[in-house]
Amino acid sequence: MDNKEKALQCHKEWNGKLETIAKSKVNSREDLAIAYTPGVAEPCKVIAENKEAAYTYTWKANTVAVVSDGSAVLGLGNIGPYAAMPVMEGKCVLFKEFGNVNAVPICLDTQDTEEIIAAVKNIAPGFGGINLEDISAPRCFEIEERLKEMLDIPVFHDDQHGTAIVVLAGIINGLRVTGKKKEDCKVVVNGAGSAGVAITRLLLTYGFQHVTMCDREGIIGKDYPGLNWMQKKMTEVTNLSNKKGTLADALKGADIFVGVSAPNIVTPEMVSSMNKDSILFAMANPVPEIMPDVAKAAGARVVGTGRSDFPNQVNNVIAFPGIFKGALEGRATQITEEMKLAAAEALAHLVSDEELNDDFIMPEAFDPRVAEVVSQAVKSHIH
Amino acid sequence: MDNKEKALQCHKEWNGKLETIAKSKVNSREDLAIAYTPGVAEPCKVIAENKEAAYTYTWKANTVAVVSDGSAVLGLGNIGPYAAMPVMEGKCVLFKEFGNVNAVPICLDTQDTEEIIAAVKNIAPGFGGINLEDISAPRCFEIEERLKEMLDIPVFHDDQHGTAIVVLAGIINGLRVTGKKKEDCKVVVNGAGSAGVAITRLLLTYGFQHVTMCDREGIIGKDYPGLNWMQKKMTEVTNLSNKKGTLADALKGADIFVGVSAPNIVTPEMVSSMNKDSILFAMANPVPEIMPDVAKAAGARVVGTGRSDFPNQVNNVIAFPGIFKGALEGRATQITEEMKLAAAEALAHLVSDEELNDDFIMPEAFDPRVAEVVSQAVKSHIH
Repeated sequence: MDNKEKALQCHKEWNGKLETIAKSKVNSREDLAIAYTPGVAEPCKVIAENKEAAYTYTWKANTVAVVSDGSAVLGLGNIGPYAAMPVMEGKCVLFKEFGNVNAVPICLDTQDTEEIIAAVKNIAPGFGGINLEDISAPRCFEIEERLKEMLDIPVFHDDQHGTAIVVLAGIINGLRVTGKKKEDCKVVVNGAGSAGVAITRLLLTYGFQHVTMCDREGIIGKDYPGLNWMQKKMTEVTNLSNKKGTLADALKGADIFVGVSAPNIVTPEMVSSMNKDSILFAMANPVPEIMPDVAKAAGARVVGTGRSDFPNQVNNVIAFPGIFKGALEGRATQITEEMKLAAAEALAHLVSDEELNDDFIMPEAFDPRVAEVVSQAVKSHIH
Repeated sequence: MDNKEKALQCHKEWNGKLETIAKSKVNSREDLAIAYTPGVAEPCKVIAENKEAAYTYTWKANTVAVVSDGSAVLGLGNIGPYAAMPVMEGKCVLFKEFGNVNAVPICLDTQDTEEIIAAVKNIAPGFGGINLEDISAPRCFEIEERLKEMLDIPVFHDDQHGTAIVVLAGIINGLRVTGKKKEDCKVVVNGAGSAGVAITRLLLTYGFQHVTMCDREGIIGKDYPGLNWMQKKMTEVTNLSNKKGTLADALKGADIFVGVSAPNIVTPEMVSSMNKDSILFAMANPVPEIMPDVAKAAGARVVGTGRSDFPNQVNNVIAFPGIFKGALEGRATQITEEMKLAAAEALAHLVSDEELNDDFIMPEAFDPRVAEVVSQAVKSHIH
């Protein structure tokens, strides 16, 4: 049985990767009278007086909703809410297993921005946070921004920020290993969807000064046709010299490449045209923008991918469970830029100076310290 | 520590009566590759081809959403979605403990009919059923009816139908014990909210022919002022002689009283004016319409209440877990009238002829056969 068959077989046997479990057992009338009627009226009355008490008496304190409309599911595209469920359940499993956070998959039967916002706003009271997932750009930007304004609990689009945090952690360690300085580095981000935009924004916030975004037509600049509102906004802070040309043009003299785009679109020649000690994150899945051995042969020094069978895997699972764990424990109302930067730094510095090398810049997903240091980093930035 | 303090203390210690648990553990990269990326793409692709496969590969097959807007919470009224959470979590606990059905509390931050319908419709793909809970009348009727039309999964307002099923089970056994015939019985239902309406409808469907509804002003009839649309609809099938008067007038010569109303509103004189071998369900909580000993002294033969400290407790927990268990196992798309009648009959006949007596007409909540016989009754009526 190959892995695809095995995955199908396992999913069939699980018949759902999650279940709900009662912490309060009901084995007697007395139990029932405490956990349900009439005893349950007591916490209800306290919360009715002060809704913050919901954090004390209900699962809100440690529970997130993982919400998707199934419009941009990893590698599968717009497969809709039913087909997105296995991914959302998987995400919920990771929340619990890595962060000890309860998570509920919510797959929405609408791809209308207003309806999505209304649904999430309306289900929010029972949750301590909202993890948005696999919602296509540019709707994902508006949905997240508006929900952040409306809600008093953290709203976090993991495809954007989880990815950005992990990439930044890798880049921080890429700088450590190569001795490059962020102020001087030329960065090229290829792909201008949710991840590309979020990575670019976080790199700028971190202090990179020269970031250029590309999409399949080439370098994105002010007069570039067909940009969505978010991409237009990005032209105000990227490619400040308003360079034009192809991805190959962008990469000449660049220090860092970040690809969230398509297989095999970076050639050895492009890598050779980059500055010495170049750092590449080729995260197209399952086939990266350039294979690590090819990139290294062409002169790259540090290469990361999305895959677990190559070194330096960029894997969101090292970020989101700890992000929400910290936000929930510290009762954060938002995930701020400071928290994201702190999380990236904390992840980067889990790799000690002794361990750090070209092929080991990322902490391991199964390193038991990961969620804890990320959560501490987040908590230390709650005001 | 009294029971109220204990309930508060327990809820604080639980900090949520529910949790989510991963059935698919992730202890290695291999596990991750099966339960999450890349393996998870396989069930996604199968479901994208045929959304029915969601029942095979996700938790939809055995998971319900318990949805409330907090507008009519048991004994507490309109306390809103935050304060309703402990009740909904409690309900979810009972679903799991009694029916082995996963359940997720969803408390909605809106009391607008259209917004509630939109939210439930939009979250439905990930669930196998919707249990509506503690939504005030008459909105609850429209919300349920419209969702039943829109969705291909069972939608069931437990305050209506769960209560009606259990009351009917009790009445069936009341007839068994007294030898009365349904065709001849005069029934008075006091209270014309969600439970009163649903009880009346189910009694009529079962074959009772003389049912009169009352509210706090007295007997409801065609010219009665201030009725909502559902109550008006009920005047077409109840009180066919268009009798007017008070509850006391209604009870003269009645055989069965069902109260879902207010404490102490039935007097001994009213009971004495009923027919011989009268059957009373006085379900106001925590203080019934008349105390059982008082009713019996005034001539009642069978008395049930909502309380666990008196005989013949009317408790929805003997219905809803089995109802959804059966509906989910049999992949019902609706809970039909036939299923409700079958569930009531099954519950009634759990009490054997030998066991049956005036003070034992209801199966016990902790009788392990309960959910199973209800679920079988439901399943046997899925076409």
